[in-house]
Amino acid sequence: MDIADLATRITSGDRRALARAITLVESGRADHRERAQALLAALLSNGRQALRIGLSGTPGVGKSTFIESFGMMLIGKGLKVAVLAVDPSSARSGGSILGDKTRMERLSRDPKAFIRPSPSQSTLGGVARRTREAVSLCEAAGFDVVLIETVGVGQSETMVAEMTDLFVLLMAPGGGDELQGVKRGIMEMADLILVNKADGDLEPAARRTCADYAGALHLLRRRPQDPEGFPKAMCVSALSEAGLETAWDEMQALADWRREHGFFDARRADQARFWFGEEVRRGLLARLDHDPALRQRMETLGTAVAAGEATVAGAVAEILAEIGARGG
Amino acid sequence: MDIADLATRITSGDRRALARAITLVESGRADHRERAQALLAALLSNGRQALRIGLSGTPGVGKSTFIESFGMMLIGKGLKVAVLAVDPSSARSGGSILGDKTRMERLSRDPKAFIRPSPSQSTLGGVARRTREAVSLCEAAGFDVVLIETVGVGQSETMVAEMTDLFVLLMAPGGGDELQGVKRGIMEMADLILVNKADGDLEPAARRTCADYAGALHLLRRRPQDPEGFPKAMCVSALSEAGLETAWDEMQALADWRREHGFFDARRADQARFWFGEEVRRGLLARLDHDPALRQRMETLGTAVAAGEATVAGAVAEILAEIGARGG
Repeated sequence: MDIADLATRITSGDRRALARAITLVESGRADHRERAQALLAALLSNGRQALRIGLSGTPGVGKSTFIESFGMMLIGKGLKVAVLAVDPSSARSGGSILGDKTRMERLSRDPKAFIRPSPSQSTLGGVARRTREAVSLCEAAGFDVVLIETVGVGQSETMVAEMTDLFVLLMAPGGGDELQGVKRGIMEMADLILVNKADGDLEPAARRTCADYAGALHLLRRRPQDPEGFPKAMCVSALSEAGLETAWDEMQALADWRREHGFFDARRADQARFWFGEEVRRGLLARLDHDPALRQRMETLGTAVAAGEATVAGAVAEILAEIGARGG
Repeated sequence: MDIADLATRITSGDRRALARAITLVESGRADHRERAQALLAALLSNGRQALRIGLSGTPGVGKSTFIESFGMMLIGKGLKVAVLAVDPSSARSGGSILGDKTRMERLSRDPKAFIRPSPSQSTLGGVARRTREAVSLCEAAGFDVVLIETVGVGQSETMVAEMTDLFVLLMAPGGGDELQGVKRGIMEMADLILVNKADGDLEPAARRTCADYAGALHLLRRRPQDPEGFPKAMCVSALSEAGLETAWDEMQALADWRREHGFFDARRADQARFWFGEEVRRGLLARLDHDPALRQRMETLGTAVAAGEATVAGAVAEILAEIGARGG
C-alpha cells in the first residue's frame, strides 16, 4: 500500500491500517524502515495527542484484569483506548505474548480498544524504538489513552517511564515487609501507586499496604512536576471495579496540572531529545556490527591486540581513523 | 624527552621515568595522547609480564595495611611491587587520593615499590584506559607484581577484574549476616577471599566469617579456569602479618595452574579484545561530543524533534547520513 494512503486510513481510525503500520515499524528490513520513517513523518502534522500512561507491576498483581476493567471503564466514558505491552523476557526469547488478548476478553473485542503484544526484538533498544513508534501511530489514529504495560523489571520500566506522561505502579496487598522489596528507583518513578485486590478478604491488607506506601511516598522529596499530594497511593479493585473512577480522576487531575504548569510539554520535549540522542548513539555503534569490511578489520585488529602484537591504543586509533576516512 | 629515550629508561627500571610516563598516559591532550601511544608501542616488544592482582574491599577492611604488609613481604622475597589505585569517588570529585602514600609508609619509601594514586578522570571509561596503560608501563619497567586496588563499588570492581590475572576480595570479620551484604556478582568474580583482622579479639569472628564464605563459595558452580578448591576463603592478619605467606602461595599456585592449562594467556587475550572493543565504541561516541559542527547539528535536530517538527527516526537518519558523508 501507498504510504500516503496508509497515513490517511490511520488518521481516519482504521484499526487494520494501524495494525499494519505497527508491523511495519517493527520490521528490521531496510526498505520497511524507510517506509516506516516516511509514514511517521507523514503523520507528524496530524498533531493528535493521547494521554500516555505507563503501567508496571510484577506478575500476579492482576495487571491484565486491571487493564481490562480500567480500559472498559474508559470506553464507557466514550474514550478510545490502546494497550501496548513491553516484555523484556519476550524480547529475550524472541517470542511475543500472545496471551494478552485472551486475558483481556471484553477489551480485545471492543471496537474502541486496540491491543498489541510486545514486539519480539532482540535488544531493549530495539523494543524501545518500536514501542515509541507504535505509540505515535496510536496517537495519530485518534486514541485518547495509550496504556503501555510492562513487568516489574528495572530497565524496561525506566524505558516505559521515558515514553509516557504518567507512570502507574500496580501493587498487590502484602505485609509491611513488601515495602522493602520495592526498589527506591521505582518508587521515585511512580506518579500513582495503585494497590489492587482491595476486595473481599484482602481488603484490610490492601488498606494497610496502601497506607504503608503513602507513608513511604511522603518521605520522598517533592518533585517540581508534582502538585501537592502527588505521588499518591490508592486502593483499587480490578475485580469489583472499585476505585477505578477515582484513579482515573487523579490521573486526569495530575495531567491537567502538568499541562497548565508547562511540565507536560516539557517532559515530552525532554523525552524526544533523549530518544534522539539514544538512537544516534545506537545507530553509530550499529555500524561496527553491520559493515562487513569494518567487522573484518575489527576482527583482525582484535586478534593482533589479543596476541600482544599491537597495543589497544594503537589499534583503536587505527580503526577510528579508518571509520573516519571511509565515511562510516 | 624523546620517546625512545623514555622507553629505554623505563625498561631499565627508572622509577622517575615510569612516573613521568604514567602522567603522560593520564593526560587528555591530543599531542600527549599521540606520544603515549608511541611509547606504549615502543614498550610492547619488551615482553615482560607481571602478575596482575586486583584487590577489592570496602573502606574499613584494612586495605592499606594489607597492601603495606603484603607488599613488604613480597619485597622481602626479592620481588618488585607496583600498587595502582582505582577510586571512582576520586574520579567523580576530580581529585585523587593523596593519602595512599602516607597510609603505606614503609612500602612507599622502599625503592623496590612503586605506588600511584587513582587518576582523576571524569569517567570510569577514562580511568579504565589510564589504569590499563599504567599497568603496561609497570610491567615494562620490570615489576613482578602489580596490585590494583579498588573500593567495593560495583562497576569499578568489574573493571579491575577485567584487567587483572587474579581477583582478591578483602573482607572484615562479621556475623553471618554479613554474607547477605556481599553481592553475588562480586563473589563470582573473586578468586580468593581474604578475611582480614584475624588477630586478637577478632580472631574467632574472623574464623567464623571465613568458614561462612568458604561455605558460600562451595555453593557456586566451579568455573573452568579454576583448579579443585578454588575460589578459596582464607584468614589473614595484615597487622600481625599472619597468613600473608600462605595467601601468596595460593595466588601463585592458582596463577601457575592457569598458566599450565592455558587459561592465563587466554584470559589476557580476552581482556585485550574486550578493551579494544570498548575503546572503539567509546571513541566512536566521543565524536558526537568533540566535533563542534556535529554537536551543533545534533542540537538543532534535537530541538526540532523536541518541538515536534521532526520525527526521531527522521532526525536520526539525517545525522547518521551526515556523519557518514563527512567522514566522522
